[in-house]
Parts: sequence; structure tokens; C-alpha cells
Amino acid sequence: MQKTLSILGSTGSIGRQTLEVAEHLGHRVLALSADKSIKLLEEQTRKYRPALVAVFDEKAAGEFESRISGTDTRVVRGMDGLIEAARESGADTIVTAIAGAAGLQPTLAALETGKRVAIANKEPLVCAGRLVMDTARKHGAEIIPVDSEHSAIFQCLHELRVTTAGSTSHDLSCAENIKTIKKIILTASGGPFRGKTRDELSKVTPEMALRHPNWSMGQKVTIDSATLMNKGLEIIEAVHLFNITPEQIEVVIHPESIIHSMVEFTDNTIIALLSNPDMRLPIQYALTYPDRMPSQIKALDITELKQLTFEKPDYDSFPCLRLAYKAAKSGDTACAALNKANEEAVDKFLKNETGFYGISDKIEEALKGNLCT
Amino acid sequence: MQKTLSILGSTGSIGRQTLEVAEHLGHRVLALSADKSIKLLEEQTRKYRPALVAVFDEKAAGEFESRISGTDTRVVRGMDGLIEAARESGADTIVTAIAGAAGLQPTLAALETGKRVAIANKEPLVCAGRLVMDTARKHGAEIIPVDSEHSAIFQCLHELRVTTAGSTSHDLSCAENIKTIKKIILTASGGPFRGKTRDELSKVTPEMALRHPNWSMGQKVTIDSATLMNKGLEIIEAVHLFNITPEQIEVVIHPESIIHSMVEFTDNTIIALLSNPDMRLPIQYALTYPDRMPSQIKALDITELKQLTFEKPDYDSFPCLRLAYKAAKSGDTACAALNKANEEAVDKFLKNETGFYGISDKIEEALKGNLCT
Repeated sequence: MQKTLSILGSTGSIGRQTLEVAEHLGHRVLALSADKSIKLLEEQTRKYRPALVAVFDEKAAGEFESRISGTDTRVVRGMDGLIEAARESGADTIVTAIAGAAGLQPTLAALETGKRVAIANKEPLVCAGRLVMDTARKHGAEIIPVDSEHSAIFQCLHELRVTTAGSTSHDLSCAENIKTIKKIILTASGGPFRGKTRDELSKVTPEMALRHPNWSMGQKVTIDSATLMNKGLEIIEAVHLFNITPEQIEVVIHPESIIHSMVEFTDNTIIALLSNPDMRLPIQYALTYPDRMPSQIKALDITELKQLTFEKPDYDSFPCLRLAYKAAKSGDTACAALNKANEEAVDKFLKNETGFYGISDKIEEALKGNLCT
Repeated sequence: MQKTLSILGSTGSIGRQTLEVAEHLGHRVLALSADKSIKLLEEQTRKYRPALVAVFDEKAAGEFESRISGTDTRVVRGMDGLIEAARESGADTIVTAIAGAAGLQPTLAALETGKRVAIANKEPLVCAGRLVMDTARKHGAEIIPVDSEHSAIFQCLHELRVTTAGSTSHDLSCAENIKTIKKIILTASGGPFRGKTRDELSKVTPEMALRHPNWSMGQKVTIDSATLMNKGLEIIEAVHLFNITPEQIEVVIHPESIIHSMVEFTDNTIIALLSNPDMRLPIQYALTYPDRMPSQIKALDITELKQLTFEKPDYDSFPCLRLAYKAAKSGDTACAALNKANEEAVDKFLKNETGFYGISDKIEEALKGNLCT
């Protein structure tokens, strides 16, 4: 069945891959949005012919409008434009892949449609998780996570939701859902500095941190991956998405990034999701759920890998992970403070204005004033 | 909720563990059966106070009856007795754990009740898979596999059944179930002779084969584990249980026996089930499904394991695996012939009347006259 999509943040990595998947699935794109990458946005607009395109940056919006004049696409701008693209496109599914805090309002607007929201930006859940989940519940919207770890957990939990509800339930935060979950095992590649001591890491420069071994990402995400703060943010997201406590989340370092996460149930059975690492897979699942369709992703030959390895994270070398647990236990205010402090500190680190542990020090300090405990 | 059980084959390894699990869960035992281990059967009868006990061996039945005279337990005997214990106990769930061909008729009788049958003996599915599945369908019985591999696959498929049916379906062989399964990955420990060459294996004696590294089993099963015929029989079972083709089943050697099997879907997502190897876990799941209950099984600490390894099976050193694929492709007659030839050849091997490859040679010969292709 052809579905219709609104893709917020279509020029970023997730946005571009979503368009690729949409094309593969034969889905129709009704709306796109970008901040200021109007050259790529123009290409996308000419190719996919959305009825609506939102450009966040006002100046870029004007230029974009003149570039595509003569087409049927209507251009809207600023935050109001993003919200319109989230709310008014008429799409079955809204993919929210806007980077940073700008994603919150459009995500809430998307949830208010009561449709499916494939959620790919961390900030709304990290900084306002309760609000986001409450909005979804209130409007009966489906939240399908796009992050590979959360998509894996979501898929491992299917069984559970059936068990308890008697039929497929889209409400991820339904209290009954959690009764047979014992633990979520969130896997982490360990980043480029896995195995390094605190002493070695204190000498890390931005250049060293920007070489992530597994895949290419933006600079902010790459540093988060080096400090393990990316995993910390995922802990906070998982708490909201799956309505569990931080204590129920265990982070396990798994350098091969083949098991994307696992769920342990009360009987000590673990269900895991494995695949070659490729973001197009969780993106596609968020679009086809509860169905599955053939994908463009290379099948995994587990015998070619030969082995999968696992180790406990080093909380001493990677204090961001510990700080994220602390914030998650405290609540939304602390999580928002952690996220803000991290963004600012990563920015400073990238400008060589602070060292590797300047990031966690800054966060630790920010949390001091924002813990509810 | 307290459930009631009839356990056929209660003195064997699976039967004993089922009683342990039943006690843990607080389930009530209404019927038991054994062949001739009446000493243990008496202990079980005095402890669990079943209303009905079937003793297959006629002579042992008489002795058993006098041993427990004065109790409220009624004793029945022979195949008719087994069938009565399967059919007339009034239990919610019938666990069929009778070894060998004697399990077929009681299994069919259990399925005719239209209740849940936790199936733990291989022979009915291996030798008469179509008949077994047809009987289940006709009477609306639930078949829940107890074998750890098939239980794992069953659990990994839950999602799928929901996807296609819109509600939990107990009919494992429903055609719609298979549309998004690409492949079943059946894991195998590799047995005690993993990595050995054909030349080395040709010198294997029964004594060498009877030292299996992972857990204690009966002699027949231990030899099947050494020749990989146990995995071959599981291929045939999986074909029937999950209504897939032998070509859709891949055997992967996984010496740690932590991943109990996996399912690959059309989008190249793999769902896997992991746990410490302990038969009480799949037994318990078969009893509590679709719920889960806390179990007595030790939780898995994947970071303690450090690694999971995988390799392709060596079809040259282990021809039984290839022969099982061949029989599975041909159909029930060939599978029954394979099973019979294997039983006879293993018996000869245990008596030192044939060598390690005498087993596969015998099966190959038996298949010659029994292939439909």
C-alpha cells in the first residue's frame, strides 16, 4: 500500500536516507523541510514533488522560493512553517529528523495529528520526554522510534505488547506493557576510545575524536559517540519510550554493532535484534510497521563475522554515561540541563576551548542545580 | 492462574524438569506416564498425587499398581493407557515427552483434545509431521514446542503472527504466518567433534562420542549430537512446525549455545533468543505462554561470556546434516526412513558393530529407496 510521508529535516543524514527508503517502498512524499541546505532541498523538491516545503531559516526560505518558482510546491518558513509541515501535510506518517532543540515544537505538532510519528531526533524525548509521551497518548498518535537501538527494543517488545493487551497496541507507554520486562540491554559500540584510560583520554583532541570507526555522522554526534553521551541520551529516551526506570537499563559495549539492543524478560529470556548496521533498516521498519517489506540492506551472514563480543562500560573513563543515569533518575528538568550543558561543552571542545573531560565536568556542574533528588 | 498438566514421559529428563517447573509455577499435575521406571514414577505419584498414571510396560504396570495401592491414583497400562492419559486427564496442557516412536499415538490423542500440547518428543514431527500438524489444525489444538531451538523460533515469530493475523494466533502452520519469514537460523553447538576432519572422525568410538561437553542426555541423543543428526531432525521438525521449506533453514554452528536460534525476516532483520542453556526455560514458556513468569533459570550476563562465535557446519565431516536436508525436501516417508535408519545405526554404533560413518552410510542407503524426487 502506498503511504504518504512528511519528512522534517530532509537534508540531514536521516532525512536523506528516509527519502531513499521512501523511494524504495514507493511511498509518496507530501512535505519536506530543511534549515538552510537549500541546494539539496531544491534537488529533493524537484525529484519528489512535495506539495509543501518548510525552510526554517527565513533568508534561505526566500532564496529557496525563487529557486523553485514555477513548480507546484508551496513554501512556508520559520518555526510556523515547520509546524505546518508537521501538521498540515495530510501525510500518514511524519518523520521528525530535525537536529537539535528546534525539533520539539514540530514533533509535538506531528503528535497532535494523531497519526504515526517516526521519531528520529533525540532532543524532544531527552528534554521533554514526559510532555512528548503525554501528547502522543492524548492524541492517540503512534510513536515509532527510528534510532537503531530503540527500534530494536521496540521490535523485541512486540511479543510483550501482544501478550498483555491481547491485540497489537501502539501505545508504547501503556503500564501493562512493562510487567514482564525485566531489563533493557542497550548496546553501544564503545566509540573510538573504547579501552582507553582516563589519563589517555584527557589528552584527546577534537581531531582525534572526529574519526569514528563505524559510520559517518555529524560532528556533535561524533563527539557524543566518543564520550558515550550518545548512549546516555539513549538511556533517557528509552526511559520515556518504554516507560521503564533507568535502573532497568543496562548498557553493554558491543563493538561489532550487530546486536542493536536486547530485552530481558522476567523469565530471564533475552530477545535480541541483529542486522548489519544500516540506518535505512530502522527507518524502513518505522514506515512499514507492523508489516515488513524487502529492504535494500545487505543480509547479515553471522558466520562471516565469526564472533560477537561484549564488555561492561568503563564508567570511570566515560563519566557522561553515569551522568546520564543520574539525570534520568531525577527527571525532565535534569535531563534538559544535561542536554544543554553537553551541547555547549561539545561546542567548546570542538573549538579547543575545553578538554575531553571538560565536557563531563561542565555537565556535572550543570546537574548540581537541577537534580530533584 | 493455576493450570493443570498431563505429563507423558514423566521419568525422562524432560519429564522430570517439567515436574520441577510445574512445582515452581504452582501448577497441578493430573496425569503422569512412564515406560518402566516405576521406582521414580512411584516417588512422583506420591509427591504430585495425579488422578491417573499410565505405565506403558505391562509387567511394570502390575508392579506399580501394587506399589501404590491405597492411594487415590488410578493406574492404566500399555498404549491404551498412554492414550487415556493424553486424552482423558482433563488437563489444560499435555506435555508429550515420551522417547521414541511410542510417542506418536499419545501425541495425536493429545492433539485431539483441542487443548495445548507442549511437544517435547521429536519422533511424531519427524516421522509424521504432516499428520501431526493436520490433527492440530483439525481439532484447534495449540502446539507449543519445548525443544530449545524451536521454542526460540516460536518466540522470535510472535511478532510476525501478530503482524499478519491482527491478534495472537496459535496456529503455527497458518500460511499467512510465513510471508515475512525469509529464513530460520537454527543454531547448533557443533557437538563434541566440531572441527574434526572426516579422517579423525572415522576412528571415533562410542566411548569418545558419549562425552558431550554441554549437558547430560541419553545415549541416543548424545550420539545424534555427535553426528549432528540431532540438528538434522530439528530441521525436519522446523519444516512442519513453522510451515517453511528446508531451503529456508540455515544451520549455524554456535558452540556457546547461548543464542538458541534466530529468524531472519524479509527486510533482513534478524530476531534472536538468548539465555543460559537450561531446558526448564523452554518448558516453562510452553506452560505459561503467552505470559511469562519469573523462572529458576540463572540470568545471562552477556559481558561475562565476553564472546559469541559462529561458523558454518562442515557437511563433509557431518553428512547426517546433509541427509536430513535431503529427507526433509522429499517428505514424510523419507523422513521416517531416515529416522528409523538412524535409530538402528546408532544402536549398532553403540554396540561397536559399526563405525562413526556407518551411521550416515546406513541412512544414505535407506534414503535411496524412499525419496520422492
